[in-house]
Amino acid sequence: MSWPPLREELRGIEPYGAPQLDVPVQLNVNENPYGPSPECVADIASAVAEAATTLNRYPDREFVELRAALAAYLSHDTVHGVTPEQVWAANGSNEVMLQLLQAFGGPGRVALSFAPTYSMYPEYARDSLTEWVAGRRESDFSLDLDHARDLVKETQPSVVLLPSPNNPTGTALPFDAIATLCEAAGDGIVVIDEAYGEFRRAGVRSAVELLPEHRNLVVTRTMSKAFAAAGLRLGYLAADPAICDAIRVVRLPYHLSAVTQATALAALRHAPELLGKVDELRVERDATVDWLRAQGLQVADSDANFALFGTFADRHAVWQGLLDRGVLIRETGPDGWLRVSIGTADEMMAFKEALTQVMEEL
Amino acid sequence: MSWPPLREELRGIEPYGAPQLDVPVQLNVNENPYGPSPECVADIASAVAEAATTLNRYPDREFVELRAALAAYLSHDTVHGVTPEQVWAANGSNEVMLQLLQAFGGPGRVALSFAPTYSMYPEYARDSLTEWVAGRRESDFSLDLDHARDLVKETQPSVVLLPSPNNPTGTALPFDAIATLCEAAGDGIVVIDEAYGEFRRAGVRSAVELLPEHRNLVVTRTMSKAFAAAGLRLGYLAADPAICDAIRVVRLPYHLSAVTQATALAALRHAPELLGKVDELRVERDATVDWLRAQGLQVADSDANFALFGTFADRHAVWQGLLDRGVLIRETGPDGWLRVSIGTADEMMAFKEALTQVMEEL
Repeated sequence: MSWPPLREELRGIEPYGAPQLDVPVQLNVNENPYGPSPECVADIASAVAEAATTLNRYPDREFVELRAALAAYLSHDTVHGVTPEQVWAANGSNEVMLQLLQAFGGPGRVALSFAPTYSMYPEYARDSLTEWVAGRRESDFSLDLDHARDLVKETQPSVVLLPSPNNPTGTALPFDAIATLCEAAGDGIVVIDEAYGEFRRAGVRSAVELLPEHRNLVVTRTMSKAFAAAGLRLGYLAADPAICDAIRVVRLPYHLSAVTQATALAALRHAPELLGKVDELRVERDATVDWLRAQGLQVADSDANFALFGTFADRHAVWQGLLDRGVLIRETGPDGWLRVSIGTADEMMAFKEALTQVMEEL
Repeated sequence: MSWPPLREELRGIEPYGAPQLDVPVQLNVNENPYGPSPECVADIASAVAEAATTLNRYPDREFVELRAALAAYLSHDTVHGVTPEQVWAANGSNEVMLQLLQAFGGPGRVALSFAPTYSMYPEYARDSLTEWVAGRRESDFSLDLDHARDLVKETQPSVVLLPSPNNPTGTALPFDAIATLCEAAGDGIVVIDEAYGEFRRAGVRSAVELLPEHRNLVVTRTMSKAFAAAGLRLGYLAADPAICDAIRVVRLPYHLSAVTQATALAALRHAPELLGKVDELRVERDATVDWLRAQGLQVADSDANFALFGTFADRHAVWQGLLDRGVLIRETGPDGWLRVSIGTADEMMAFKEALTQVMEEL
C-alpha cells in the first residue's frame, strides 16, 4: 500500500461534480429556478420544529408516513395506483441507484446502459464492483431498440439503467421500448430513471403506468427537480415490493433523517404549487428549444428542464464566452454539444442574448 | 438469477436494526433521553427556514461552514487544534464508515476489528467487498495488546476499526494502545470510533489528541449521542487531510443536504447546553453501574451512555421480563449479557425496579 491507501482503481480520479461558481445566471446543474413559496418555507420550518423536539430519538427506519405520501403522489400517474410497499426512498436518487447496485449488482454481474447517458452511472457501478457495459445510441441520441434488446440478451445484465428523459440529451424513451427491454432482461431489473419525469411533453407517458405488467421494472424519481428541492436530497423509486424489501438488506440503518422526512412531507403537501411552476418551465423549455433551432442550431427533443444543443467546433469557447457574460451552462454530453438548464424567463433572456453575442464572434 | 435478483451473499439476511417497539421506557438504542431545549428547537427551525428559501439549489458539496464548526468543536479536545481540512462528515457515522471502506477497503483487502464489537462493522465490510477479520477480546472485553498487534502485522489490514469506548461493552481503549496499533498498521488506517467519546470517564483522553502523531489515525464521532441528535444522522471524522480528500472520490455528490447542514450548525451552536446534559448522564451512568454491581452483577467499566451487565443463564427471559414491565433494553453482546442505555433518573428508577422484580423471579 502507498499513502493514503486508496484503492488502486480510484487513484487519480477527480471527485464527481460540476464547478460550483458564483455567477449571476446559473443554468448548469438543472436546478429549478424557483424557490419554494413563503407558505411552503413556513410549513417546512414548522414540520422540522416538530421533528426537532424528539431529535434525540432515531428516525422511523421505515419512513412509513413518507412512503405513503410518495405513493399517493405517484398514484396520479397511473390508474393502477401505487402502494407504500412499492415505494423506497434515500438521500438523493444517487443513493437509491447505489443501493440498487449494492443489492442487485456486484462482482460477476453486469450493469448496462446506453451512452451518452448520465455520467454518474459508471461511478455507481465502480463503487459496487459491478461490471459496467455501455451500448451506443443513434446520432439523434435515440435507442436502436433491436440493438438494445440484443445487447441485453447478450450481456444478461442484472441491472439496466435507462433515464427517461435521458440526461444529458433530454428525450424520453418511447413507451413501447420499456416493455421490450423489461421482457428481454428476464430476472434482471430495468431501472427507468425519471428524475426529470414531471417535465415530459404532453402525451408522453410515465413508466409508472407499466409497473403492474413487469415485476422487474423500477421507476426512480427525485424531489430535486419538479419539487424544487435539490437541497433536500430526496430520491425515491416505485417497484415490486420484493425489490423494496431486498434493498432493506443493504441500506444503512436510519438512512433517512427525521429532518429529511419532515421536510419532504411538507414539500409534498405543496405539490400543486410546485408543479404549477413545472408547467411554466415546460413552456419556457419549448420556447428555448424553438429559439435555438431558429438560430440554426440542432437541439435534441426535450422532455426535461434542460436542452442539449450544438454542434460547435469549439464548444469550450462557447461555454467560456457565456461564462464571461455571467451565464453558466454545462459543458457535457457528446463532443460539440452543450447543455443549458431552463431558468426563469429573465434568465433565459440573458442566456439568449449572451449566446447571440458569442455566436457572432465565432 | 432468481427473483428478486439479490446478490447471492445477501439472501436470507435480515436487515440490521433493533425492534422499534412502542414502550414507555426506551433504553435499547443508546439514545440521549433529553430532547433539545425549546431555544435549540427554535434555532433549528429558523436555520432550516433560511436554508429552505434556496432549497431549489444544490447544497454546498464541500459543506465548508459545517466542517469549520465541527473542527472548532473538536479543537476543545486537543491543544493541537483541528482544522476544517481535517474534518469530513456524512449521514451518520455509518455512512462515514462505509465511505472509509469504499475508499480504503475493497476486494483483496482486509478490515480488522476485535469481537465483541459494533455489529454493523461486518456489514460495512460486506457491502464494500472487503474481507472481514475479527480478533478476540479478553473475558473482561479488553484488548490483549500483544495479540492485537500481532494480528495487525499478520493480516495487514487496510482498515482497523476500534470503537472507544467499545460497543456493546462500554469501555474505552487504553490511550497507549492507539499509538501501538497505529504504528503496527503501517499505511493501513486505524479508525478509533468515538461515537460515545463525550461520555468517557474523567481522566480518559480522546484519540483526537494523537492526530498530529499518526497520519493513519482516523477519529470518528457522531452528533447522535452527545448532541442528542440521533434523528439528524450526522457523523463525522477528523484525520489527515489526505484521508478526507480520498473520501471525496467515493462520496455521492451533494451527500449532505442543505437541511442537514443547517440543522447540524444550529445544534452545534447549542453545544454547551447539550453537553451539560452529557455530564448529568455520566453521573447517572456511574450510579447505574454501581447499583448493578451492588446487586451482585458483573458490569463492564463504562465510558459510554450504556452499561453491559450480566451474566444470566437465560438473558432472553430477563429481557422479556423487563419488556413486560414496560422497559425495553437490548439483547446484544456476548451470551448471557444485556445492555441498558442510560436514560433520565426516572427511567433508570423504572429500570431498577423492573430488574429487581425480574431477578426475584429467576
